[in-house]
Amino acid sequence: MCKVNLNCDLGESFGAYAIGMDEHIIPLVNSANIACGFHAGDPIVMSRTVDACIAGGTEIGAHPGYPDLMGFGRRVMSITADEARAYVLYQIGALDAFCRARGAALSHVKLHGALYNAAAKDGLLAEGICKGIRQYGGDLVAVGLSGSLFLKIAEDMGLTVAHEVFADRGYNDDGSLVKRGAPGAMIKDEQLAVRRAVRMVTEGKVTAVSGKDIDIKADTICAHGDGAGALELIKGLRQGLGAASVALTGMRKEKC
Amino acid sequence: MCKVNLNCDLGESFGAYAIGMDEHIIPLVNSANIACGFHAGDPIVMSRTVDACIAGGTEIGAHPGYPDLMGFGRRVMSITADEARAYVLYQIGALDAFCRARGAALSHVKLHGALYNAAAKDGLLAEGICKGIRQYGGDLVAVGLSGSLFLKIAEDMGLTVAHEVFADRGYNDDGSLVKRGAPGAMIKDEQLAVRRAVRMVTEGKVTAVSGKDIDIKADTICAHGDGAGALELIKGLRQGLGAASVALTGMRKEKC
Amino acid sequence: MCKVNLNCDLGESFGAYAIGMDEHIIPLVNSANIACGFHAGDPIVMSRTVDACIAGGTEIGAHPGYPDLMGFGRRVMSITADEARAYVLYQIGALDAFCRARGAALSHVKLHGALYNAAAKDGLLAEGICKGIRQYGGDLVAVGLSGSLFLKIAEDMGLTVAHEVFADRGYNDDGSLVKRGAPGAMIKDEQLAVRRAVRMVTEGKVTAVSGKDIDIKADTICAHGDGAGALELIKGLRQGLGAASVALTGMRKEKC
Amino acid sequence: MCKVNLNCDLGESFGAYAIGMDEHIIPLVNSANIACGFHAGDPIVMSRTVDACIAGGTEIGAHPGYPDLMGFGRRVMSITADEARAYVLYQIGALDAFCRARGAALSHVKLHGALYNAAAKDGLLAEGICKGIRQYGGDLVAVGLSGSLFLKIAEDMGLTVAHEVFADRGYNDDGSLVKRGAPGAMIKDEQLAVRRAVRMVTEGKVTAVSGKDIDIKADTICAHGDGAGALELIKGLRQGLGAASVALTGMRKEKC
Repeated sequence: MCKVNLNCDLGESFGAYAIGMDEHIIPLVNSANIACGFHAGDPIVMSRTVDACIAGGTEIGAHPGYPDLMGFGRRVMSITADEARAYVLYQIGALDAFCRARGAALSHVKLHGALYNAAAKDGLLAEGICKGIRQYGGDLVAVGLSGSLFLKIAEDMGLTVAHEVFADRGYNDDGSLVKRGAPGAMIKDEQLAVRRAVRMVTEGKVTAVSGKDIDIKADTICAHGDGAGALELIKGLRQGLGAASVALTGMRKEKC
Repeated sequence: MCKVNLNCDLGESFGAYAIGMDEHIIPLVNSANIACGFHAGDPIVMSRTVDACIAGGTEIGAHPGYPDLMGFGRRVMSITADEARAYVLYQIGALDAFCRARGAALSHVKLHGALYNAAAKDGLLAEGICKGIRQYGGDLVAVGLSGSLFLKIAEDMGLTVAHEVFADRGYNDDGSLVKRGAPGAMIKDEQLAVRRAVRMVTEGKVTAVSGKDIDIKADTICAHGDGAGALELIKGLRQGLGAASVALTGMRKEKC
Repeated sequence: MCKVNLNCDLGESFGAYAIGMDEHIIPLVNSANIACGFHAGDPIVMSRTVDACIAGGTEIGAHPGYPDLMGFGRRVMSITADEARAYVLYQIGALDAFCRARGAALSHVKLHGALYNAAAKDGLLAEGICKGIRQYGGDLVAVGLSGSLFLKIAEDMGLTVAHEVFADRGYNDDGSLVKRGAPGAMIKDEQLAVRRAVRMVTEGKVTAVSGKDIDIKADTICAHGDGAGALELIKGLRQGLGAASVALTGMRKEKC
Repeated sequence: MCKVNLNCDLGESFGAYAIGMDEHIIPLVNSANIACGFHAGDPIVMSRTVDACIAGGTEIGAHPGYPDLMGFGRRVMSITADEARAYVLYQIGALDAFCRARGAALSHVKLHGALYNAAAKDGLLAEGICKGIRQYGGDLVAVGLSGSLFLKIAEDMGLTVAHEVFADRGYNDDGSLVKRGAPGAMIKDEQLAVRRAVRMVTEGKVTAVSGKDIDIKADTICAHGDGAGALELIKGLRQGLGAASVALTGMRKEKC
């Protein structure tokens, strides 16, 4: 039977600022990527989110970002590879403390926002980050953009990887995402988004904005989204995957 | 043979800002308390300081503080006990990541500045912090002001503790430190400071500002200090302790 | 005819984090207290909020707080009087830049959260802050807790002051607010809150939690509140004040 | 008689972290660029530095940078033009508050580090920043890399500009600086640096790393530098310029 993982970015509140619908989403996904205090999240939010994931049986991953709370980690910063390594180590360790406090273990690492995108194509940056993940140990799965340089480097460095796809984003012919703001960047029709996701999982194909079908590897589907639509998309994905006999599974487990 | 531990606050640089004489001090103390990014320190500084401690054979401890870089953690903040727990967990985990990266283990936790002082006498705060230390696990030694409520609570909660004394600070009759700025707060005569430290270790006594001799337990001596004098005091302490046949040892080891 | 001012804390969003219902509230109040980037707010939020106030004909005031974004300025910090002076100057100047950019002028300064409460009773802190307000110039009105030491000191230092009252908060016999969490801290019945506010303005009296009527000076009413209730309270206040023939006016204008 | 301005970046300490030799440099330069709390500086440091400049008769300018204290503003961040405008406005206003407190006026704005370099060649970013400077008013001089796009845009937008040159940096044929780390980036021979500066001022020429003489406009010389060498270079520049009959003058004054 074909399997895939459903992941979501969570724990992005900060102090008095609440964001997201974590309590509704946690029970519906396999794996949570929890912000670690650099681009979002704070120790109290991290503690609560870890607790909620444990209660919901959801795998916990670190979601490190640039040290840019004002920009929510969405702005590229020209940090060095060694800074990236150290920033990732710091954030993984900080989140893991809340797992340890509850006897739980971290399962994976998924970068956030601009750092995710920068590492997808910048080899030196990716190397620094993967070095940090490997140094931390614990056999953490490196989650990244499907087919990206980041995942190639991660694999070369001996890390277990998971290729991530996006149900609601448009793809270029080379497998990169269409930039936000450009035509075709967002798949707004939820049913279409679900069908595309199911096809990526079961056929390993997606139709790029050019109209061309391209190959794509789907180990995990990002179920993140802004506003109320996020929850609907997740429910749609669960239903659509179920109808196609695709089971949901952990980040490290065998996929389709 | 009588033994004591020598500890120092280290890794307090931040970004382009250098502070301290870490490279000279690390080889001369048993245990380093490394800042964790809240009141001082950043991931690069933490990484380098951990590496230097490993190279120097110096034990590594976490040195968590208030989230107040602008105030260097020297200003009291009215945080809740649960915030204190979460802040301490976060900082321990963040530092431990750099230890894990090198196959090293954390040995202890010593609070910084205003948090150290607040926890010494605020039971609820101390409880929150000790809960965080205990939740982290790893059998970390809780280092605190000798004879303080913090250490009593830590012991009651099952933590191993280390009573810390200050060579260059004046004491009140109740064992608390004379406030900075008040008469007798600082022992400026280095030789006197060394003699006081040796006596605290060997006799368990110190002369308070009132002139009265009080009982004091000295498991570890803080060798921290500002400016160039810090290094001289450490050298003086090592010499004075040696002359009194007091050996230096790890934070968790049997003392006098 | 009797007059009073209606003010509200605004511009408390930060980066990707949205808080408040500024666009709905701005047209309904006389004076906005805009966060200045220390406890909340960022340059983009400040710029937009100033623009919205100008469009809505709402007076603009600075709303400085402690440098504690993680705690939303709600935690006391033991800063010195001179730090308070400098922090207030910094924040007033930063906000004023956005007023200058649009040819507008700042009208007042109202402290935020824990700093507001601390300055209400700590004379040294209040002096430092008032010194900062006076140094900035521009004849800014100092807004503070009605009858507080802060306003007394502000007046002694030559500042124009405005005594602020809270429609939805309980009062102690000495005119201080009942602490959040304590019985009677919040007036949850909106109609009662409105009646109390109208009476404070027209009679200069309010019933304390003890049941005793106390004197209170009401130059300006805080129309701030959390959640959807805030907007309803403001509408209720406008209606209730209108029905009692109390006109709304600017912060510096003659009151009842 | 030929004239030029001597400027220096100052006020870059932060909290407990001291950097620079401000008290020695302030009396030796015409114009100070004071950090505004984003990449360096804090309200107390800004207050003290403004006071020292007033005491020393030194012109005060704002030195805005990226919001990146950990990176000291030396890392490029992909902020938008409007964010740049707002960040610059915020920082100018914050610094100006301390000038107003002393009855002094700001004279100029010089960007810091990575923002200085990014704005020198990114037209959209430069436009946003110049819009902020113009919106602030006060006829502030925009200081930038000699011959840069930033200064062209500033002039087109009606700002007074000052072309800045660096005594101790190598130049490419197009007038840009040789990147730090590349051969010829730094002029380490102090006497050579002084001779180059004098020639830039008196002849409007400098020898690029290629060996070719290029045209360069020198309204102001950056006297900034790291370590103890900074002070020596400034003294050398003053002597060399004096020997060449070049007078020192304010940022806005007529130059050679």
